[in-house]
Amino acid sequence: MTGLERFSVNQMTVRQLPLPELFSACRELGVGQVGLWREPVREYGLTETAALVRDAGLRVTTLCRGGFLTATDPEARAAALADNRRAVVEAATLGTDTLVLVSGGLPPGAKDLRAARERVADALTDLAPYAESHGVRLAVEPLHPMLAADRCVVSTLDQALALAERFPAHQVGVAVDTYHVWWDDRAPAAIARAGAAGRLHTFQLADWTTPLPAGVLDGRGQLGDGSVDFGEWQRHVDAAGYTGPVEVELFNEHLWARDGREVLAETVARFRKCAGG
Amino acid sequence: MTGLERFSVNQMTVRQLPLPELFSACRELGVGQVGLWREPVREYGLTETAALVRDAGLRVTTLCRGGFLTATDPEARAAALADNRRAVVEAATLGTDTLVLVSGGLPPGAKDLRAARERVADALTDLAPYAESHGVRLAVEPLHPMLAADRCVVSTLDQALALAERFPAHQVGVAVDTYHVWWDDRAPAAIARAGAAGRLHTFQLADWTTPLPAGVLDGRGQLGDGSVDFGEWQRHVDAAGYTGPVEVELFNEHLWARDGREVLAETVARFRKCAGG
Repeated sequence: MTGLERFSVNQMTVRQLPLPELFSACRELGVGQVGLWREPVREYGLTETAALVRDAGLRVTTLCRGGFLTATDPEARAAALADNRRAVVEAATLGTDTLVLVSGGLPPGAKDLRAARERVADALTDLAPYAESHGVRLAVEPLHPMLAADRCVVSTLDQALALAERFPAHQVGVAVDTYHVWWDDRAPAAIARAGAAGRLHTFQLADWTTPLPAGVLDGRGQLGDGSVDFGEWQRHVDAAGYTGPVEVELFNEHLWARDGREVLAETVARFRKCAGG
Repeated sequence: MTGLERFSVNQMTVRQLPLPELFSACRELGVGQVGLWREPVREYGLTETAALVRDAGLRVTTLCRGGFLTATDPEARAAALADNRRAVVEAATLGTDTLVLVSGGLPPGAKDLRAARERVADALTDLAPYAESHGVRLAVEPLHPMLAADRCVVSTLDQALALAERFPAHQVGVAVDTYHVWWDDRAPAAIARAGAAGRLHTFQLADWTTPLPAGVLDGRGQLGDGSVDFGEWQRHVDAAGYTGPVEVELFNEHLWARDGREVLAETVARFRKCAGG
């Protein structure tokens, strides 16, 4: 037991590390699982990345991210669906069964969150069977309500689950990230419901630190630096029957400015101290 | 009918205007109601402000703000309660029946939102009868979840209402601000419940604009510039039986940098166009 059996590092946490360096750092630290992002994977090459993953003996826990399915313009909608089908193929090629979906924000000038969520549901009707045929599950991720207008109209785990529940559990589930749900007193009950239905498709960690930076995207705190009680959330997902990976995904300018191997070592140490380790 | 019968301008919207200038600008524009803040009132003098309000023939719709009731330290708690009692007296002196409460964030190092909310409830037990004896109602305001850690552990209207419901409606109700609740698909039902119980103590407007500024406090958008459908929220409070003032409260660095009278005139015009006018 290394205490890292369930740990996975999302590559955005140390995005300053090129993939070969990330994987060698993982090997040195005893990290056996990674979450990958489409852009850096594409940059390195999809088949090249898949080969690198195999050679390193790593497991890919998630691919982030599909989604952005809220456009009203027919051409933009068609392009988004096509892009999500590519994301499904990429996930399958990388050997992960989980594609995380960030739903997308309101189109310019729009004010109707409910209608935008319905367009996400429509898109899932198209994508979910396609994903299943590639052995990939879709994980709808609620993002913090501060991102509802410009990034993700799905703001709560209740909403994400309501979308997922329209489809079979092996097609569509939810992604639980402590950063996005920590404030929500209804999230524990939603976790229990999601777990009972087999829809807890991934569990991610980041801490809530203040003050938030401008644009509020890149201020996700290192574990232990903020207000999130990771033990409590781990107990919630454990009680819901979740036995999968626990992925640390930090978007943080300060961490990105530092040496990537040092940040990864720190993240491992913090995981052991604060979370499941 | 000027279309401004229900309009109230919170003085923070044009905080660059000293009180006498604010009140003369209100007179010129046909604005009969203002929401006041404790700090500028104290600076001008409480009795002096009350006299100025009377002379201007204005109605004070709310005093902002009491609250900050989450400290664990006994001395800090006693100081907060004493300060809130002063706020009650100030509200009564200014002739408003509504004191808005911002609950306060997590104490340093704390991670338990639920316990912090219970400390707010404890404080209300002390404050609510005191406020009633001065003819003042307390309005618990949920602040956007992005402010849960450092400013207000009450993040949803459901939570605010759950706190209020422990007390008689004429003692404790809720404040609904579109900026804080616009993302919440459960807020309309909470508004209906609050209205039916006589607990809708004030209704405030601000628009949601992105990107958010660093610290996320001072980016509340001018009406019409963002994602909020004011007509929809007005219908929700109307349907809940709310007949009180509609107060525009913007915290916005860009608006504060401009000529205050011009901003007030613009706010009146936007209110007429987007909201109840």
